[in-house]
This record gives sequence, structure tokens and C-alpha cells, in this order.
Amino acid sequence: MQARQITLASRPVGMPTAETFGSRVVEVGPPADGEVLVRWRFLSVDPYMRGRMNAARSYVPPFEVGEPLIGSAVGEVLESNSPSVAVGDLVLSMASWSDYEVKPAHSLRRLEPVEGVSPSAYLGVLGMPGFTAYIGLTRFAEPKSGEVLFVSGAAGAVGSAVGQIAKIMGLRVIGSAGGAAKATRLGELGFDIGIDYRAGDIVHLLAEAAPDGIDLYFDNVGGSHLVAALEASRDYARFVMCGSISGYNASAREPGPWNLFRVVQRRLTLRGFIVSDHGAALGEFAEKMTGWIRAGQVKYDETVVKGLDNAPEAFLGLFSGANLGKMVVEL
Amino acid sequence: MQARQITLASRPVGMPTAETFGSRVVEVGPPADGEVLVRWRFLSVDPYMRGRMNAARSYVPPFEVGEPLIGSAVGEVLESNSPSVAVGDLVLSMASWSDYEVKPAHSLRRLEPVEGVSPSAYLGVLGMPGFTAYIGLTRFAEPKSGEVLFVSGAAGAVGSAVGQIAKIMGLRVIGSAGGAAKATRLGELGFDIGIDYRAGDIVHLLAEAAPDGIDLYFDNVGGSHLVAALEASRDYARFVMCGSISGYNASAREPGPWNLFRVVQRRLTLRGFIVSDHGAALGEFAEKMTGWIRAGQVKYDETVVKGLDNAPEAFLGLFSGANLGKMVVEL
Repeated sequence: MQARQITLASRPVGMPTAETFGSRVVEVGPPADGEVLVRWRFLSVDPYMRGRMNAARSYVPPFEVGEPLIGSAVGEVLESNSPSVAVGDLVLSMASWSDYEVKPAHSLRRLEPVEGVSPSAYLGVLGMPGFTAYIGLTRFAEPKSGEVLFVSGAAGAVGSAVGQIAKIMGLRVIGSAGGAAKATRLGELGFDIGIDYRAGDIVHLLAEAAPDGIDLYFDNVGGSHLVAALEASRDYARFVMCGSISGYNASAREPGPWNLFRVVQRRLTLRGFIVSDHGAALGEFAEKMTGWIRAGQVKYDETVVKGLDNAPEAFLGLFSGANLGKMVVEL
Repeated sequence: MQARQITLASRPVGMPTAETFGSRVVEVGPPADGEVLVRWRFLSVDPYMRGRMNAARSYVPPFEVGEPLIGSAVGEVLESNSPSVAVGDLVLSMASWSDYEVKPAHSLRRLEPVEGVSPSAYLGVLGMPGFTAYIGLTRFAEPKSGEVLFVSGAAGAVGSAVGQIAKIMGLRVIGSAGGAAKATRLGELGFDIGIDYRAGDIVHLLAEAAPDGIDLYFDNVGGSHLVAALEASRDYARFVMCGSISGYNASAREPGPWNLFRVVQRRLTLRGFIVSDHGAALGEFAEKMTGWIRAGQVKYDETVVKGLDNAPEAFLGLFSGANLGKMVVEL
């Protein structure tokens, strides 16, 4: 049968454009021994994918020009040539941006349906972004009840999970997001303060929101948000360095924070991490997060873009803040 | 009697100049009950003092305009009105930049002479700079034998101690210093590689010196040295953030490192510290460092400037690299 794929047509310089993406139709054969044919139902678009569009190896190898883009996806098994996966199973895997794909059965994770939870949640709150929030907080932040945490990108898939888990941990939580509607949504999610960073200078906005400073910063944004967090830091504050979406489309080297010397003055600790190093904790995470969702302690938003051909638009929307919560592409 | 003092005449913007410093003669009375009269013999000039010349409080309060500058000093007790200190004792204390001063006896630390070691060493390898090196390495670096450490400002008082202690710990040590003579001196101190950062671009020089990358960076310099260390970092490298002398005289905000995102990509940890938080470890340090010096495992250089009136010149020399090892003013 035939499958349609979205490919990397050329490596972008700066913000990806229409020239960045291509498409093609390929033959996908019947699954060989140990393989299955999957129909993808939800594709994930995530900020980290921008790094894979560059030629340089980062912590994952680059996408190849002319080949499909790759991301997490949830799909349904149409044909199985493996005893471990049955037709109709819902599965999670890294996937080509495509409608149909033949995959080795061992590369798939079978998903147990959770009542009241969309399968797409395995791309967000129950998937990599939620796991990122969990690992960052539990393995790197060393939070103590009553401390003040600031999280940037707080209305996004990672940030909204960070804020809500931090509330469960007993922290005071300040989040920043772009626009008044998102800032209001943070309040509904239980954040103590939601900052609309577009309403002013984030350095001043954070200083107002945290007049006594912050103990923890969970960085998804970098740039002026990192400057603001350094300015607001209390002595011995810990910074969990997770992402820097403000800089992913820079076409030239951008200066770092002018106030990095606060790290010395205030005895700060900055720790970077990559969630894929922590796979051993996936079971622990799944159990806790499922419980929190069932108990109503963690809510999640999704922004759903329909159609494979709109996957590039969904991806680009991550950088303009088009998403509330997890951005997914529904096929 | 009369004492001569060097004062902060005005707060400098950028590099201090002749207008920054003043002098005055004050009466010092005979020591009251519990006080002693000290004749200072060695004054310490240290890069951190530049921060105290600014009006903003950093981790220590600012110097006051019109009042003497203050730093560590070693002196001799001339008169004592305290049972705990005797005339002729060598003492260490924070001191006004002055020739004579009356001090409370409880503010002085009596120094035990160490054979073959100048009392001025208590301002350097046996004092705050050596202690800074020791605390940074033992409390913040988490070094493992065989790892590669890079230290900037390596010919200075802190850096030369860092490199030599790191060698005792079994590390491979690369140091950078300004000029061929200092780089050669690093080799004599047991460093594996001494880089003359003035001979080229430190990013390239470090990449050549550490083709497989670095596990540890001890930052005394900031600026392009920090950029170079970020570029050279291996996954999971630890950065001990101690100082940033390249920026202390900036008159405007200087951009931070363009490549700070390596912290995420390579799972780095950056930890700032202030040595004065760690006074409880002073005894442990003194015992170890004295042993290392006696065993010839740690050597130390001093650059001695003579005369109280030349203290400003000695201080300014820190920023042009006029010192090999510890810069002290001998009165």
C-alpha cells in the first residue's frame, strides 16, 4: 500500500519556512516477520525537533534531508506479524511523519487505555513532556515545601505539568506564558500567579510577582526569561535547565544572559538534563501521573491540528505560541 | 599615634583610575580594653574587591566612599590590651589599607609560623585564595581520578592552587594564563598543559589542548574562557563557578556566553559558591595545605609590591595580569 510522508526538504536557517518541508508518497510493504503495519492517529510536534533540523549533532542525531521528519506518535495496529502486538492495539513509538508505517513490533509500546484520557495524552502529559516535567522536578530541582518556583513556557506541555506537579509538592508556583488568556488559564490550573510576559518586561513582571525572590527556576524558554530568573534568584536557588525555545530559530549566535555572574554571587546551581537519559523512571512516572490525572490534581490542555499536511504548520505554531498545552496533529 | 590609610575616593565606572583612590592620615589611639595595636606587614589585593567598589550590595557590602579600602592582611602586634594576644604575635585579619590599626583582639587570628613559609602565604596559598581552590574542588567539583580539568586564571593565586590540588587528586589538568612565561610556569607547577590564551583564540586553543573534551571547569575568568569551556565540555561535565575577572571592570552590561545551551545539550552542572560560606572547613584545609606545601606537592608564587602607596597599583595589576601567583603589598 501507499503511505504519505512529510519530509525535511532543506535545512532551515532561522525560522523554518515552506521550503523546509516536502512530502512524498512511498510504498509500504506488508509487515515482515516481527513487524506490524501501523496507522498513525496522533503525531507529536515538539520544540526540540528544531535542533534536529540542523546539520550538527546535538544530543540526538540530525534529521536527514529528503527523509521524513520523525517524532513520537500514537497509532493503531492494522496488520500484525508479531505475537506481541494484536490488530487494533493502540501503540506509541517514534514515527515518521506519515499516515501509515511498517515498524518492528519491539519498537512499539502498547498503550493501556485510561478512562477519560485521550490516547493523544501519551504524547503530552502522560508522555515525554509530562515525563520531562517529572524528571526535572524530582531528579534535579531538589524542591522543598514552601519554596517559590518559577516556570517559563508555563502554558505549554512541559510547563503546565511542571507547575501542577510543583503544587502537589507544596511549592508556591509562578508561571509565565504569552498572552492574557494563557495567564488566566495558569490560574485555573492551580498556579499561584500567571504572568503574561507579553504585557511588559519579564524582568520587572517577575520581580513584582516574586518580591522575595525565587528558589527554583524551571527554564523552557531561555533569553530574557533566564535573565529575569537570574535577577529574581535567591541565594542558593536551583535552576533546572530544560529548554530554550526563544533561541531555537536564531540564525546567528545570540548573546547569553548579561547577569550570569549571579551564579557566583548567589551560589546558584544550574543543571541541564535530557529526559531520554532517565528511561528507568518511566514506570514510576506513569503510575504517579495516571493517579494525579484520575484524582483531578493534574489537568492538561491540547491544541489539535488536523491533517498530516498541516503538521508543518503545527510545528511552526510552537514558536509563535499557537498552542495551549500540548500541540498534536490528528490524522 | 598616626596611621596612613588608602581610601576609596570615588566609585569607579569601568576600570579604576587615579581618581578612585585617596589617602588620609588618622589618629589611632592606644588600644582600649580587649584591643590591640597592629602594624600591618602584608596587605592582600584580590579581584573580588572590585565588586565592593560598586554601590550595589553583592555578597559582601560595598566599600564606603571616603573610607579606607578593606582586605585581608597579616600584621604584627605592637601593643596588646588583651590576654589572648601578645606583643610580637603574627596575626591575620580583615584590615583597613593602612600601616597601623587598632583592632579588637577577637577579630584576629594568631598565625603559627610555618618553617620555610612566608607569613604572606596566609594571604594566598594558605589563606582565602588557597581555601577557595580547596572548597571549590572538594565541595563542588566532584572530581574523579583520571578526569580532565580546565582552570582559567591558572597562574593566579586561586588557579595555581586549583591545578596543583587537582593533580594531587589524580586529574589531568589544563590551565590557561596570559603570556608564554606564565604558561611555562604552569608546567613547572605540574600542570599537564599550560595554555597562553594571548597566543590565539581560547576556544581553539582549548579544543587543541583537550581534543576529547573536559570533565571539569574551574572558572576564574568568565567571558571567552567560559565560552571555550562550554564548547569543550563533555556530557555531564561540572563547572565550578568561582569568579569572572574578565568582566569585573565592565562599564556596561556584557553579553553572556552565546553557547550556554550546551548546559542542556550536554547535561552540564554549573555551581556558584562563595568561600566565606565554608568557614567550618578551615581547619581541615589548613592541615591539608600545610602538609602539601611541606611535602613539596603544592608550590606557590607571589608578586610583591612594596609600599602602602603602591597598593592601588598592585590592585589594578590584577586586571592586567601583572601578578604571577598571589599579589601582595609589603609595607
